[in-house]
Amino acid sequence: MKKHRIPQVAVIGSSEADEPTLRVAEQVGGIIARLGAALVTGGRGGIMAAASRGCAEAGGTVLAVTPHQQMDEVNDYAHFHIPTAMGWARNCITGIAGDVVVVIGGAAGTLSEIAYAWMYDRPILALSCCEGWSRRIAGQPVDHRRSDVVVDCPSLKALEKELRARLATISRR
Amino acid sequence: MKKHRIPQVAVIGSSEADEPTLRVAEQVGGIIARLGAALVTGGRGGIMAAASRGCAEAGGTVLAVTPHQQMDEVNDYAHFHIPTAMGWARNCITGIAGDVVVVIGGAAGTLSEIAYAWMYDRPILALSCCEGWSRRIAGQPVDHRRSDVVVDCPSLKALEKELRARLATISRR
Amino acid sequence: MKKHRIPQVAVIGSSEADEPTLRVAEQVGGIIARLGAALVTGGRGGIMAAASRGCAEAGGTVLAVTPHQQMDEVNDYAHFHIPTAMGWARNCITGIAGDVVVVIGGAAGTLSEIAYAWMYDRPILALSCCEGWSRRIAGQPVDHRRSDVVVDCPSLKALEKELRARLATISRR
Amino acid sequence: MKKHRIPQVAVIGSSEADEPTLRVAEQVGGIIARLGAALVTGGRGGIMAAASRGCAEAGGTVLAVTPHQQMDEVNDYAHFHIPTAMGWARNCITGIAGDVVVVIGGAAGTLSEIAYAWMYDRPILALSCCEGWSRRIAGQPVDHRRSDVVVDCPSLKALEKELRARLATISRR
Repeated sequence: MKKHRIPQVAVIGSSEADEPTLRVAEQVGGIIARLGAALVTGGRGGIMAAASRGCAEAGGTVLAVTPHQQMDEVNDYAHFHIPTAMGWARNCITGIAGDVVVVIGGAAGTLSEIAYAWMYDRPILALSCCEGWSRRIAGQPVDHRRSDVVVDCPSLKALEKELRARLATISRR
Repeated sequence: MKKHRIPQVAVIGSSEADEPTLRVAEQVGGIIARLGAALVTGGRGGIMAAASRGCAEAGGTVLAVTPHQQMDEVNDYAHFHIPTAMGWARNCITGIAGDVVVVIGGAAGTLSEIAYAWMYDRPILALSCCEGWSRRIAGQPVDHRRSDVVVDCPSLKALEKELRARLATISRR
Repeated sequence: MKKHRIPQVAVIGSSEADEPTLRVAEQVGGIIARLGAALVTGGRGGIMAAASRGCAEAGGTVLAVTPHQQMDEVNDYAHFHIPTAMGWARNCITGIAGDVVVVIGGAAGTLSEIAYAWMYDRPILALSCCEGWSRRIAGQPVDHRRSDVVVDCPSLKALEKELRARLATISRR
Repeated sequence: MKKHRIPQVAVIGSSEADEPTLRVAEQVGGIIARLGAALVTGGRGGIMAAASRGCAEAGGTVLAVTPHQQMDEVNDYAHFHIPTAMGWARNCITGIAGDVVVVIGGAAGTLSEIAYAWMYDRPILALSCCEGWSRRIAGQPVDHRRSDVVVDCPSLKALEKELRARLATISRR
């Protein structure tokens, strides 16, 4: 890995989610911070805000890549903001802006990000304990062009173990 | 509908496909031409080229929206070419560039286009007789934000009937 | 040139313009139609609508590549509509969607399109009789990476002559 | 300003530049770090790498938004990398990814970024001591839609003064 670069984990999920899923997202943010990686999200509410809060409160760094135009059109927990001004076309960026991509729940926007993560060869970890695309696609390949699958993480513990292993590999590169 | 505008059908599918699926795509192109609509594809090979050939040979008009840069980086059957020079980020355009979107087979790229078609409220018709995302997602909703589903078309006959009905509605708008 | 493909001219200019400039744009649309090329614009008002009207009324074909989302969010003169749903990021497409690019007046949006036309090696013709970037940049290079300049067309007659020559070259390719 | 957010300065300029211009860019990076802002660049060589090195060596934080796909396709000085996989279409992002935008030299790519910075209302500071678009456009408006101009900074001292003033205003917002 490039010497200055800090490993990044992209978390993708909906701007709306129920309380239990938001708590999961917040804990995922904390795990990422404790593993020494930076968090990248889409910078909006729901899963994105919850993961960002969890990461920031655990002392981690949070980047947001939003569909918006203005520098302050971003949630309260991002340290850095990359506005794209291109609406949901920004999903082709949020889906690939990590060394690893973590899926928590997710609707159609998240699905587009999963597809991009797959096309651009990012490892994808999906929390199958959360309703939405993370459950629908966990354990399956997106297509036949890669030989792996979207890794099924049935629990936060399983996710942490997978993340730790992936980040260790990346740092050694 | 705007008075000069000609109804458009976007066909999405892989740049590689087996012979039977290519024949289906070619027939879909012909159906679109006979229904008086223009065809929009991603302008590459496989499903895109087959549908374009079928449409052009039946006297229809074919538009291509490619990930490429040069005006001639497009398949042989497009009458008009919109190069985007943005790689697969162009999928957010091909997924919404029709009044109706038809899915034939499809890998991760097609999946990203399905997601965009859903987000931007396009009616989606999926040929479940073809292996790939058109079969995996036919009859299902992409998420809970729309009350409809990706329409399951088990045959070319079923697709033609659905297309005819949708295009009639659009022309009357 | 690919056998089915019809030569395309992209016309770039502002969504707001004074009457004389709009009349020029309308005539440019007519010239393009009579030269047998299709017109591509950004599909909004002002120069885009005027050129499109001129082209459509002279029997030409008009394509619109808009920043918008809905199929009918386009001016009244486009036969085909490619919505991009990406705001002004669509300028990187409109600036390169022709075998030749014609600049009529123009503000910052047009300037971004000129820059993209230059980066992606499109011939650029600028009507220096019109106030705006077409006058500011006519006769100059955008940078040192190309050996040509933005061609200064001081009149419609000069533009028609240049367009005819360029399109002849392209059709022979 | 959002409470966690750190002010950002986007530096735009070419991937190739002569030695004196590179030294200027390196010093600009250092100034940004000392003013407590983060630097955002396009993550490639030339002006981008020089400004990034200057910022990183002065203890600042560096973000890169590249046209590339892979996480390690970025210069050696970026702490964080947002790959866009969309070629030069990424210029619509780099041009707006700062609370303030600084232009150093620059060819057509930089010009497209200047146009976007103007369209999305970012303050633009141009080092007129450097050959290229920063000199060509310094002191001028990009169009009539804003009442200000691209601020002419004839020296590093002038730039530092302007930057300090702008960043103070932004932090107080």
